[in-house]
Amino acid sequence: MSSTLILLRHGESTWNALNLFTGWVDVPLSERGQEEARKGGELLKSAGLLPDVVHTSLLRRAITTGNLALDAADRHWIPVRRTWRLNERHYGDLQGKDKKQTLQAYGEEQFMLWRRSYDVPPPPIAPDSEFSQAGDPRYADLGPEMPTTECLADVVARLEPYLRGPIADDLRAGHTVLLAAHGNSLRAVVKLLDGIGDEAIAKVNIPTGQPLAYELDADLRPVTAGGTYLDPEAAAAAITAVANQGR
Amino acid sequence: MSSTLILLRHGESTWNALNLFTGWVDVPLSERGQEEARKGGELLKSAGLLPDVVHTSLLRRAITTGNLALDAADRHWIPVRRTWRLNERHYGDLQGKDKKQTLQAYGEEQFMLWRRSYDVPPPPIAPDSEFSQAGDPRYADLGPEMPTTECLADVVARLEPYLRGPIADDLRAGHTVLLAAHGNSLRAVVKLLDGIGDEAIAKVNIPTGQPLAYELDADLRPVTAGGTYLDPEAAAAAITAVANQGR
Repeated sequence: MSSTLILLRHGESTWNALNLFTGWVDVPLSERGQEEARKGGELLKSAGLLPDVVHTSLLRRAITTGNLALDAADRHWIPVRRTWRLNERHYGDLQGKDKKQTLQAYGEEQFMLWRRSYDVPPPPIAPDSEFSQAGDPRYADLGPEMPTTECLADVVARLEPYLRGPIADDLRAGHTVLLAAHGNSLRAVVKLLDGIGDEAIAKVNIPTGQPLAYELDADLRPVTAGGTYLDPEAAAAAITAVANQGR
Repeated sequence: MSSTLILLRHGESTWNALNLFTGWVDVPLSERGQEEARKGGELLKSAGLLPDVVHTSLLRRAITTGNLALDAADRHWIPVRRTWRLNERHYGDLQGKDKKQTLQAYGEEQFMLWRRSYDVPPPPIAPDSEFSQAGDPRYADLGPEMPTTECLADVVARLEPYLRGPIADDLRAGHTVLLAAHGNSLRAVVKLLDGIGDEAIAKVNIPTGQPLAYELDADLRPVTAGGTYLDPEAAAAAITAVANQGR
């Protein structure tokens, strides 16, 4: 039996628009980001790709994206699961900092190392920083797992048990599963599904608001490597825009 | 151990504004209804009454109300449960009909019997009516439980197992529980919690967008009969408005 996993990266947030590193800071979608989410839902509906269950991160921009996309697809009533394991990469001490200023202050090499290296996290954030999530009640149960910075390898490590567990359970039940999440948590999913290497994943960019559908076989392996964008032209244009972020 | 159950009736829908019987027809909130939901969430936040879990019906106007209220209260990230058992009363063949025209066509007595009697349902809706939910995928699992009309007694009967089951489980775990639902499903909850008689419940009106909080004892009995509105003056004004609907 095959099943379908749909990845949907949230649209523009107020901090994307301001070009700030966001990570776990819980900023809302911009008006444009809300419109991207609705359009993503309309794409699902017109493709007849109707989610039976949605999994989201604990961050507002992914949650709102899921809500708006499902409403546009007339699937607002499906079961909802939320988990910190789908959160964006924790950006450590970079959270709240301007991307362009960071690039100028630290130089291209360090900037790209933090943004795209697989296993070099930014410096950890101090618990008393205004952009720290220490003490946030939604993470109260995490204990020592609560990150203060993450590289992509850390995201893969905390995401994999959830992908192999609750998400795989829903897929094996034959459900069409929607993940409403973030650039880096969805890159981690793509890395695991497609078996992409630690270096090659640096070049994978996932566009915002563009549903990416993976048809999976009974062993949850992609029938088509890299999945299928519902709107390939718009996705290609958006990938280019993401790759140029911070310039 | 005490726990708190918060009832939140959805705000104005596009059909409330048009004065049509809605029932299970899945209409969206009006702009005003969306604003009511946000204000309800702000009331929760300013009262420090923070839901740990939300239960909604399968209807868009309650789901959106929950989404907007929780977002306004910074509790958008809590677990979500959805169930048809919290749906509005199925209004049978009246669904889609104008309330004022129905009052004129059938007279005050019959109109009030359908609106407020405990055990007289309207005529059932035909499966081929444009306002029937026959074939709607969200109800595919219901089988013979799928209603074609309901009186309030029917709503109480289908809601009680869910109140005594999943909702009570969350309350016994010490959670603050939000129900985002409808006029008649919340009247059913109030009837069960306060032990209101079959005739007396006819006079209970629940205002839209006004959080009604029940502190419950270890046996899930209300500490204060009738609960407490977070904004008593606004609630009283809204109750009067609801009682005059259709006039």
